[in-house]
Amino acid sequence: MSQPISSEMRSCIQDCQRCHSVCLETVMHCLKVGGENAKPGHIQLLLDCAEICQTSANFMLRMSDLHGLTCGVCAEVCERCAEDCERFVDDIMMQACAQACRHCAASCREMAGQAHH
Amino acid sequence: MSQPISSEMRSCIQDCQRCHSVCLETVMHCLKVGGENAKPGHIQLLLDCAEICQTSANFMLRMSDLHGLTCGVCAEVCERCAEDCERFVDDIMMQACAQACRHCAASCREMAGQAHH
Amino acid sequence: MSQPISSEMRSCIQDCQRCHSVCLETVMHCLKVGGENAKPGHIQLLLDCAEICQTSANFMLRMSDLHGLTCGVCAEVCERCAEDCERFVDDIMMQACAQACRHCAASCREMAGQAHH
Amino acid sequence: MSQPISSEMRSCIQDCQRCHSVCLETVMHCLKVGGENAKPGHIQLLLDCAEICQTSANFMLRMSDLHGLTCGVCAEVCERCAEDCERFVDDIMMQACAQACRHCAASCREMAGQAHH
Repeated sequence: MSQPISSEMRSCIQDCQRCHSVCLETVMHCLKVGGENAKPGHIQLLLDCAEICQTSANFMLRMSDLHGLTCGVCAEVCERCAEDCERFVDDIMMQACAQACRHCAASCREMAGQAHH
Repeated sequence: MSQPISSEMRSCIQDCQRCHSVCLETVMHCLKVGGENAKPGHIQLLLDCAEICQTSANFMLRMSDLHGLTCGVCAEVCERCAEDCERFVDDIMMQACAQACRHCAASCREMAGQAHH
Repeated sequence: MSQPISSEMRSCIQDCQRCHSVCLETVMHCLKVGGENAKPGHIQLLLDCAEICQTSANFMLRMSDLHGLTCGVCAEVCERCAEDCERFVDDIMMQACAQACRHCAASCREMAGQAHH
Repeated sequence: MSQPISSEMRSCIQDCQRCHSVCLETVMHCLKVGGENAKPGHIQLLLDCAEICQTSANFMLRMSDLHGLTCGVCAEVCERCAEDCERFVDDIMMQACAQACRHCAASCREMAGQAHH
């Protein structure tokens, strides 16, 4: 509680918020494209990723001591979402989403690691 | 549903996300400062503002036809929150929060107005 | 801020939470069924309804003076969602969702009306 | 994705939603009482607990394969929150909050355990 938000944490908050935004926007893109893009498991993963990114960012904005826990789960969900998006090799929006997820996963992984020390 | 996110909407999404972040961070600041800053009504307003900004941003990220409704409410809540923060004239963080709220209110007010036409 | 949560408000909170749950569960049902059920506009409306119900319930749980605003928007979104779900006359889950939306809309409409007095 | 929501999962969803509601309501109670109740770390924990319970419930409502991860974190946050609330031995509302947190923690712990098998 006692420390202000560090620059690393601010950067992780932004990565989470960016990933959240891209995932939510991608949900609508996928539903419009239809077919493989609109499969329940894929939409589910995008919604899961969007929500845990939001929650993870909010824990950090509250400077919670427990942000390491939410960042850890966020990293895992982001990685799963990235893998799932990378399958769509010809879809620029899916590739952009995968990239935002990979970036956020790395950022949250590091934040979670620091929190445990 | 049919149109992509316009640059005006993107700008409004960012204003909502920024206001959400500042309000949530300000909650913790106010609790630490205590006294008038930590009064229930003030913390409540900051939490209300943070949440409606998040919801309003998410409606726009989903390109919802109903974003005018959430933007309209968001504008009102932001204005109330701004007024409440402006009372703390010597607290830089409260002034910054008030500014983010005013900016978001104006942005959402315009977005809501366009949605009704 | 000064009053405890009234029994009418508790009932409205429950209606919002129930509607939120049913809408979110219905999203996954619709994606599995596919076709007309999985159209972007329909999924969007279910996600919008789920989120505004959650936000509306949270405003009331915080005993916010501004809950009339969120209840008012919630009522409108619920009505739109109910209409959209009622089109699927042979789908029991859609009918149950429509019913939860209608119930929540009426409850929120009344709560919003009381808040203005 | 393929299975409907089991009765155990429905029960866990309800425990999360109940804990979320109690924590959010308790935030306002604590701010009114002031003093030790309104300390930043305590309010922070209540807000953290309310939010992760909401996220955990939403993962289950979407029947996400990854609900074990969010349930696992939810269990930990609930336990921390329960411990913190139990300190206020003479405050009935804090005791009720602690109980809801303990109950939700046990329910989420079991759900997380099952998800790993």
